[in-house]
Amino acid sequence: MAYSDRVLMGPGPSNPYPEAMAAFARPVLGHLDPEFLALLDETNERLRAVWQTGNSLTFPISATGSAGMEAAFCNFVEPGDTVVVGVNGVFGSRMCDVAARCGAEVVAVNEEWGRAIDPQRLLDAHPSPKIIAVVHAETSTGVRNDIAPLGRHTGDALLLVDCVTSLGGIEVAADDWGIDIAYSGTQKCLGVPPGLAPLTVSERALEALVERPQSWYLDLNMIRAYVAGEGARAYHHTAPISMLYALHAGLGAVLEEGLPNAWARHQACGDELHTRLPELGFELWAQEGHRLPQLTTVTLPDGFDDAAGRRCLLERYGIEVGGGLGPVAGKVWRIGAMGHTARPRNAEMLLGALEELVKA
Amino acid sequence: MAYSDRVLMGPGPSNPYPEAMAAFARPVLGHLDPEFLALLDETNERLRAVWQTGNSLTFPISATGSAGMEAAFCNFVEPGDTVVVGVNGVFGSRMCDVAARCGAEVVAVNEEWGRAIDPQRLLDAHPSPKIIAVVHAETSTGVRNDIAPLGRHTGDALLLVDCVTSLGGIEVAADDWGIDIAYSGTQKCLGVPPGLAPLTVSERALEALVERPQSWYLDLNMIRAYVAGEGARAYHHTAPISMLYALHAGLGAVLEEGLPNAWARHQACGDELHTRLPELGFELWAQEGHRLPQLTTVTLPDGFDDAAGRRCLLERYGIEVGGGLGPVAGKVWRIGAMGHTARPRNAEMLLGALEELVKA
Repeated sequence: MAYSDRVLMGPGPSNPYPEAMAAFARPVLGHLDPEFLALLDETNERLRAVWQTGNSLTFPISATGSAGMEAAFCNFVEPGDTVVVGVNGVFGSRMCDVAARCGAEVVAVNEEWGRAIDPQRLLDAHPSPKIIAVVHAETSTGVRNDIAPLGRHTGDALLLVDCVTSLGGIEVAADDWGIDIAYSGTQKCLGVPPGLAPLTVSERALEALVERPQSWYLDLNMIRAYVAGEGARAYHHTAPISMLYALHAGLGAVLEEGLPNAWARHQACGDELHTRLPELGFELWAQEGHRLPQLTTVTLPDGFDDAAGRRCLLERYGIEVGGGLGPVAGKVWRIGAMGHTARPRNAEMLLGALEELVKA
Repeated sequence: MAYSDRVLMGPGPSNPYPEAMAAFARPVLGHLDPEFLALLDETNERLRAVWQTGNSLTFPISATGSAGMEAAFCNFVEPGDTVVVGVNGVFGSRMCDVAARCGAEVVAVNEEWGRAIDPQRLLDAHPSPKIIAVVHAETSTGVRNDIAPLGRHTGDALLLVDCVTSLGGIEVAADDWGIDIAYSGTQKCLGVPPGLAPLTVSERALEALVERPQSWYLDLNMIRAYVAGEGARAYHHTAPISMLYALHAGLGAVLEEGLPNAWARHQACGDELHTRLPELGFELWAQEGHRLPQLTTVTLPDGFDDAAGRRCLLERYGIEVGGGLGPVAGKVWRIGAMGHTARPRNAEMLLGALEELVKA
């Protein structure tokens, strides 16, 4: 069967950097091979650069972004702990579910979908939570929640941030912002196929690690003896070698370009879409001032059919965009320009295709 | 940096089939793309053939083999449930840990490492367990525990089997043997890089699914709406697209060869090693009659240095073998011939290298 080659302009996965794809061809090594361990160490060093952190425990969880979320909660939450969660989209809601399964008393700070959460509301929600958790870039709405104003004002509470759609696309300054626990996914602005969840944990959060979390697979006490061990590494589980090659190479591409340049490229692509989509009748949906450049959300022109439009984009142009989730299913599109996809040529391609579609 | 190209004769990962490696080059599709969903369906159909099952819920968990173990327990064990676990190696011990974290009352049936567990002891261990769990091929010892005698004699107890190192290398007949829950890994006898954990669940086990397991990421109630959904698929997490391409292609290679032929190839390679290693002073360690062809365990010749020997194999010959785990660290080697590695040429290569080493 012929292979379709899509331009991936949905909420992720994005098109991977060519360097990431090429790395898959690298011969598989064992997970205890010195050459593989050197590559893992270098990958983690590259991740520290992208997270802008000196955190010693910085590595990719061996599963997709949602497992990063689970690792972030289950290693720090014990039954009865209070967790404040900002909820203005699917992924904030998912945080509540994951935290509750760890036995947390969840205090949800709800905001209308499409609007950003006031950081002060998160700080005021409870006098002494164990964790304050919020999504940086809400993949379901295209909204950026501000993280910097939270940092260093959370007192004893750990600041936990979902950076799945932000890392590599807009600034994330884990140390400067006082982030304690954060996770991401490879398949968005890092420009690597899905399969790993980069995680970073501050030194103060390490002191709060749950001794024996309910998940064995995600147990950071055990995993750190492998990924962050000095000298001899303790086998925990078999690392997903080929995915690590891809991440290592994708991070190399991002850092060679330079993080600020990568952010500027995402911003320029988003600006172009934000400016021109309304001219075609697609109105920007996310709150002004909090719109993600890497993920543009729009309402559809009057009479424009969601499913038929997406099908035509996919079949005639080979372009994938994302539909709305939950309450805005059928009403909103999510248009990503992340990782290798965040190029002016792709913005122009989509705008040209949409212009044809709207006229048809 | 130059890429080292190892002959992977440890306990896994094995060398992948060329078809699996080639599939990584396939362009990434979105996880809701109709073409990707068709490939996922076909992958699951191929997995049913390899498991020899008609189970509707048969798919790869989006993480490595140990996450398959966790999914197998956390979706079926509720606090207070009794779980009988056969323990004659690392992976039986791990099962106890994972089950206990789900709140199980674990009844361990211990056997000496290197010996097989008497199935009757598992059946007699408790009058009414929720689950009887055992490892089919113990990766830490090279021992095969018999599964067929358990099947259909477990009463109301679900039969849960770890097939990480068995699937694709020796017979696994999930339906004929009355297996209710089983998981594997891609990086052993399936000849695919590590990263996914094929899982299969019988219809009667589906009725015993925990409604809201402690793991969100591994929640089979939610995942099945994506992987086994009819028509519209409910997004749960982003599937690891490229790893699924590799698995799909690797399974294609196995099924084109024919399962019995793949088993015979593993058997022939194991027979050669079992016959000739003792001639070099490496004595077979696993109990006779229960030796895995795909994973040979041997004690070392008198005066033979474990670490130096493995280093020489790796550096001079580019061959990886595995050391012993736990109580037999430093005393036992684990020599795999799995997946694409299970070829007569690799057995000859290793035997030739060892002959040089022993003489040196």
